[in-house]
Amino acid sequence: MKKVAIIMGSDSDLPVVRKAADTLRSFGVPYQMHVYSAHRTPEQARAFAVNARSAGFGAIIAAAGMAAHLAGALAANTTLPVIGIPLKSAAFQNGIDALLSTVQMPSGIPVAAVAVDGAVNAALLSIQILAVSDPDLAEKLDQKRREDAQKVLEKDAALQ
Amino acid sequence: MKKVAIIMGSDSDLPVVRKAADTLRSFGVPYQMHVYSAHRTPEQARAFAVNARSAGFGAIIAAAGMAAHLAGALAANTTLPVIGIPLKSAAFQNGIDALLSTVQMPSGIPVAAVAVDGAVNAALLSIQILAVSDPDLAEKLDQKRREDAQKVLEKDAALQ
Amino acid sequence: MKKVAIIMGSDSDLPVVRKAADTLRSFGVPYQMHVYSAHRTPEQARAFAVNARSAGFGAIIAAAGMAAHLAGALAANTTLPVIGIPLKSAAFQNGIDALLSTVQMPSGIPVAAVAVDGAVNAALLSIQILAVSDPDLAEKLDQKRREDAQKVLEKDAALQ
Amino acid sequence: MKKVAIIMGSDSDLPVVRKAADTLRSFGVPYQMHVYSAHRTPEQARAFAVNARSAGFGAIIAAAGMAAHLAGALAANTTLPVIGIPLKSAAFQNGIDALLSTVQMPSGIPVAAVAVDGAVNAALLSIQILAVSDPDLAEKLDQKRREDAQKVLEKDAALQ
Amino acid sequence: MKKVAIIMGSDSDLPVVRKAADTLRSFGVPYQMHVYSAHRTPEQARAFAVNARSAGFGAIIAAAGMAAHLAGALAANTTLPVIGIPLKSAAFQNGIDALLSTVQMPSGIPVAAVAVDGAVNAALLSIQILAVSDPDLAEKLDQKRREDAQKVLEKDAALQ
Amino acid sequence: MKKVAIIMGSDSDLPVVRKAADTLRSFGVPYQMHVYSAHRTPEQARAFAVNARSAGFGAIIAAAGMAAHLAGALAANTTLPVIGIPLKSAAFQNGIDALLSTVQMPSGIPVAAVAVDGAVNAALLSIQILAVSDPDLAEKLDQKRREDAQKVLEKDAALQ
Amino acid sequence: MKKVAIIMGSDSDLPVVRKAADTLRSFGVPYQMHVYSAHRTPEQARAFAVNARSAGFGAIIAAAGMAAHLAGALAANTTLPVIGIPLKSAAFQNGIDALLSTVQMPSGIPVAAVAVDGAVNAALLSIQILAVSDPDLAEKLDQKRREDAQKVLEKDAALQ
Amino acid sequence: MKKVAIIMGSDSDLPVVRKAADTLRSFGVPYQMHVYSAHRTPEQARAFAVNARSAGFGAIIAAAGMAAHLAGALAANTTLPVIGIPLKSAAFQNGIDALLSTVQMPSGIPVAAVAVDGAVNAALLSIQILAVSDPDLAEKLDQKRREDAQKVLEKDAALQ
Repeated sequence: MKKVAIIMGSDSDLPVVRKAADTLRSFGVPYQMHVYSAHRTPEQARAFAVNARSAGFGAIIAAAGMAAHLAGALAANTTLPVIGIPLKSAAFQNGIDALLSTVQMPSGIPVAAVAVDGAVNAALLSIQILAVSDPDLAEKLDQKRREDAQKVLEKDAALQ
Repeated sequence: MKKVAIIMGSDSDLPVVRKAADTLRSFGVPYQMHVYSAHRTPEQARAFAVNARSAGFGAIIAAAGMAAHLAGALAANTTLPVIGIPLKSAAFQNGIDALLSTVQMPSGIPVAAVAVDGAVNAALLSIQILAVSDPDLAEKLDQKRREDAQKVLEKDAALQ
Repeated sequence: MKKVAIIMGSDSDLPVVRKAADTLRSFGVPYQMHVYSAHRTPEQARAFAVNARSAGFGAIIAAAGMAAHLAGALAANTTLPVIGIPLKSAAFQNGIDALLSTVQMPSGIPVAAVAVDGAVNAALLSIQILAVSDPDLAEKLDQKRREDAQKVLEKDAALQ
Repeated sequence: MKKVAIIMGSDSDLPVVRKAADTLRSFGVPYQMHVYSAHRTPEQARAFAVNARSAGFGAIIAAAGMAAHLAGALAANTTLPVIGIPLKSAAFQNGIDALLSTVQMPSGIPVAAVAVDGAVNAALLSIQILAVSDPDLAEKLDQKRREDAQKVLEKDAALQ
Repeated sequence: MKKVAIIMGSDSDLPVVRKAADTLRSFGVPYQMHVYSAHRTPEQARAFAVNARSAGFGAIIAAAGMAAHLAGALAANTTLPVIGIPLKSAAFQNGIDALLSTVQMPSGIPVAAVAVDGAVNAALLSIQILAVSDPDLAEKLDQKRREDAQKVLEKDAALQ
Repeated sequence: MKKVAIIMGSDSDLPVVRKAADTLRSFGVPYQMHVYSAHRTPEQARAFAVNARSAGFGAIIAAAGMAAHLAGALAANTTLPVIGIPLKSAAFQNGIDALLSTVQMPSGIPVAAVAVDGAVNAALLSIQILAVSDPDLAEKLDQKRREDAQKVLEKDAALQ
Repeated sequence: MKKVAIIMGSDSDLPVVRKAADTLRSFGVPYQMHVYSAHRTPEQARAFAVNARSAGFGAIIAAAGMAAHLAGALAANTTLPVIGIPLKSAAFQNGIDALLSTVQMPSGIPVAAVAVDGAVNAALLSIQILAVSDPDLAEKLDQKRREDAQKVLEKDAALQ
Repeated sequence: MKKVAIIMGSDSDLPVVRKAADTLRSFGVPYQMHVYSAHRTPEQARAFAVNARSAGFGAIIAAAGMAAHLAGALAANTTLPVIGIPLKSAAFQNGIDALLSTVQMPSGIPVAAVAVDGAVNAALLSIQILAVSDPDLAEKLDQKRREDAQKVLEKDAALQ
């Protein structure tokens, strides 16, 4: 099975990003997690992206805040799908800076943006991507959906 | 090869959305294009999403403006990757309404958002998703990148 | 008397949404409260909306946060008045994502949006709708207005 | 049948607001249209709202731009449902000023906000309100929905 | 000497608005403080504005949050200068809703907006208005400026 | 009678600012109009403000766009009321940069902000300020209000 | 004398960016202009930045729109001052996406942001940087300021 | 060596601004820190800027919140590079008011804006400016970059 990479710009992002790793683990999808900064370690970020496909990765998740260039910088160096998680920072408390820096990519270099701090969805999206050619994984995703729906219905029942 | 679906909420979105179709065609990726509205034809939208995987689709592109629910409504009914294109509308001229309605999905139901009016990148992202398990398609993407880079360098040379 | 439905996307919304129920109860208006998610339980949400009029409902209140599609998803499946409460979420702390996702509905499928976290006003609006054909309820609303005004005047007097 | 009032703050709003009148007429719902400004003719606006219920109105539509107080000023003087249309103005080109001035009403005095320039939906919402106690009107609304859906499907067919 | 009126929409606004009263008192400017809501007590707000000039007021300060109509509602009923203080509310944490609702007044009915929660400046502006025809008050304002400047310079000296 | 100063940051602002002059002239209020930039001619702007009261001015209107410092720079050098008109610029098409730069003044140095491009209201506000101690001018303002109201009512009549 | 580099992400940016070149030329400051994209030609952009100091550059101006990573990508590879010009794009008409992507750089990697489309100021800032150690250039800047001020005063005189 | 000036509008800004001083000290760059307000002590601010170059300064850092005019007011009175730090204030919690007031400077008077609360980057930028003509300082900056990169790589290693 292809692996998923989770790259974060700073280890202070770990409390949010960890949820992506937890989600991948719960699906049995192998992943690697790295701290690479688009600005402080541009070479390592670039090298990782350039080699990611041949290293067996099928998707890259990149989480960064503020002028969140990490997803874009990785996407510029690979044609693997890159999923960007905009992170809320102390200053712009709603993360709109990170959201726009992640999603407004120029034509030619796509990034798949999820919601601000949306680490679980980033992981699910990477699994959906792998599942396009993996019926077992697709079935696991469907099963998870049914369980999520069931939980909502149980909460509805509890409310009555 | 898996197909890509391009769904738009209104046929008035065609001038923007057509670029996604053009991009898919230039890569030789089969696609189907539909007008289904999350609000005016919720049943058809739902039915399409429910059946998309078994119908041979590998990714769904959904383009909508304003309270752009289309991508989310499709994503709620499939575990295929759904790519959302927020469309600029006459009222909110920067499309921030469509962008937030597309990207801020709740945990459990991911949508992969691209830039406002980002139809080309939506198509490229869908191709990247198919290319995860298709080395030939991956090579075509790399080739396209090299050509794009070459064009930039030619423009740089022309500027001197 | 027609009933009012209060639908919320998640039971974590209950602390805000409960105020709508309290308001309806204080007016003696019957209501039902449900947890249905536009994304996690799209079928149940749809089924509820489709059957709401024949089940004796006169208005539907829908509360959701982030890419708040719930009100729109219900409105797409009924021609009863649907009132949307945009909920503030942890990420976008002012709820502008939920507000725009609720209010910017496309032509043909209206949603009546109230303020962010405006659960009391959502309930009052539903009562105003029922009161159009119920003079007693209209008189109760007028009475409530006079009491509210009186409270303001008492606070003004206390300030002097 | 109850009437619907359409109040606009300035006759320059007529090009947008006229669509609400057209919609009401197409459903055979009687309406009156007035130019009353919350700021330039506060007395007339107030008097209209105070007397609206006894004059046979079932809902009031109020359209205004900038610091759009009209809907709120009317709502403060009646317990009929008041529907606010935020209008885009020359300065704030996306109408966010009018949207927030319309929707962010304080607890106790609800306004039902529709999208910026959403005159058709304001009219449809007023018809939905009257239809709560008028099964024929409800059937007309359902019929309109089926026709709108049919138009979407025809456009989809034309696209193939 | 003319008096200054301080009107707030709710007594919960007192912690912010009190600073306006404190400032006026420190300048020996007479004032009256009232709780009048543009929406809950529109008649009292209107009556106050209509009579304010003949009652000896020279300026009116109006503080309100959310869809902050209070300053505009008063301004619609007097030609005295009306100063609007937009108040931050729990939902829109930066008060942009109140700011736009206060400042974006239509042509013909001006409101003098100060910063969000800017109660001290609202009071100073009202004093500046009275001081246009009161040289002693103008001298007091100049004296206050010199003292404020002196405090800055003392802090600068302390920093060295 | 006291004069009103109209200062603009650039002569390209004249098409908007001229409306303030027209309004003052229609009320017979004397005014002077100047082009002084807070950034390009800080000395002249400062000198004008320092001397404005002794030169017979009763209020200063300042119009500027982008990082609109002009009103604040003048206010820092006089205790006369300073009215700021935020001007829309080519880049930020809704003028939010100028609005925030004008209205968010720190405690101690008030600026009275009007709407973006609100030149007429700036002039009316300056007249209201002079009218605090000038009953004839106050009567003219009331007369203007009655005329404005009459025009609205005539438009309403024409609509029927 | 040190040179200034002007890098733009696309040759379609030339109409705005050209003003930076014009300004540099008018001061006699040598410059080089290049089209390098942070996303389409990351290697060339990186290589330029890495070598810029030894190639005799004293400052780098980078102009880009949307998720404007160019300035940040260059800054990550040099310790020369990098000046970012956020460019307005077709979608987000006020350029807030480019502004936030340019200015909100993480600690350690500064970018000096100027206004949206602020090409002249970017050039002036680069000249100011070179002038820190070049008294003749500083004198030219002062001369330019005096001329700019003179032009304002002439316009003021023309207005009288 | 040229000195760097750090000017803040209020001593309450010290907790953020102090980090600029710490950074300068760690590089051995001499600095002076002052509290000067553009609005409360405009003369002292102006005088400082006018004399800064001859007093041996090579760059000025200016930190202010709300309608943050300080950087612009200093820039209007010197042709030294002025670096603006927009500060978050209590009201607009994301500092967008200060950011736009700092960065949107009119043509002719540049300010180099850094991120909201970006004191460390403001200091680094001032050091980069001095380093243009100081190879030893440039080497120190490169050394700091290598250390920062090393820290990221150590955190990455720790994560494995």
